[in-house]
Amino acid sequence: MAEGGRKVVIGVDESSFAEEAFNFYAENFLKEDDVIILVHTPERYNFVDASPAVIQELLNEIKKKLKVLEEKYQEKLKAYNVKTAKFVSKEGEAGEAIVAIAEREKANLIVTGTRGMGKLRRTFLGSVSDYVIHHAKCPVLVCRK
Amino acid sequence: MAEGGRKVVIGVDESSFAEEAFNFYAENFLKEDDVIILVHTPERYNFVDASPAVIQELLNEIKKKLKVLEEKYQEKLKAYNVKTAKFVSKEGEAGEAIVAIAEREKANLIVTGTRGMGKLRRTFLGSVSDYVIHHAKCPVLVCRK
Repeated sequence: MAEGGRKVVIGVDESSFAEEAFNFYAENFLKEDDVIILVHTPERYNFVDASPAVIQELLNEIKKKLKVLEEKYQEKLKAYNVKTAKFVSKEGEAGEAIVAIAEREKANLIVTGTRGMGKLRRTFLGSVSDYVIHHAKCPVLVCRK
Repeated sequence: MAEGGRKVVIGVDESSFAEEAFNFYAENFLKEDDVIILVHTPERYNFVDASPAVIQELLNEIKKKLKVLEEKYQEKLKAYNVKTAKFVSKEGEAGEAIVAIAEREKANLIVTGTRGMGKLRRTFLGSVSDYVIHHAKCPVLVCRK
């Protein structure tokens, strides 16, 4: 496939759904020379009547959360012996960010989790997965428990 | 995962979409002890004012088409060195048949193609893929060109 291995885009956040999707990919799909691109979309906030100090505190918290997330996935990448990986943070809607980065990187696969569970699963897939499945130009692996 | 290897359900028909999905799985996901279950849903017909001879002829044609399909996939399974596979023909809607068999077999993955192409792809995924993604209890690999 792609020169230097397949390119695999995986959307990650703090949820267990993202982690399970990553694990399923790593245990079932991962090949030695795969290049993994972890895409993260920062949460968005509305600041109404907030002081600069409060805003600064929140920004620090966001940075801290992102660092924790990166460290968590760095450890997972190491545990699964992934040689080449990068962490991309892109603002905007998660689904759009994942599809845009997959196109830019000419990805061979997108891995996405789903929040759909229990009875709800039958009708509700999760807007991120749904967007990705309908807009991606490459194959998509939809993971669930 | 599953005893004796992962169980992978793949929906197949005469289309190139199904074949490309099978190829993507085989080239990117297949492991030596995977058990492949190929699910086929026969087309349905309405007989209005048809003679027994015409019906018999049509049935023979359907059987012949199914045989050609089976032979094609037997060859592909052989080419990819798949050890364990079976061919299941189940009447009904293709999506429902695939999900039902995946549940019965406790599949670890469902592989499905999509008919969505060009501009239409952005809104139209194909009813079979859409049903499978929303109803499957296991991960789903959605393949496209």
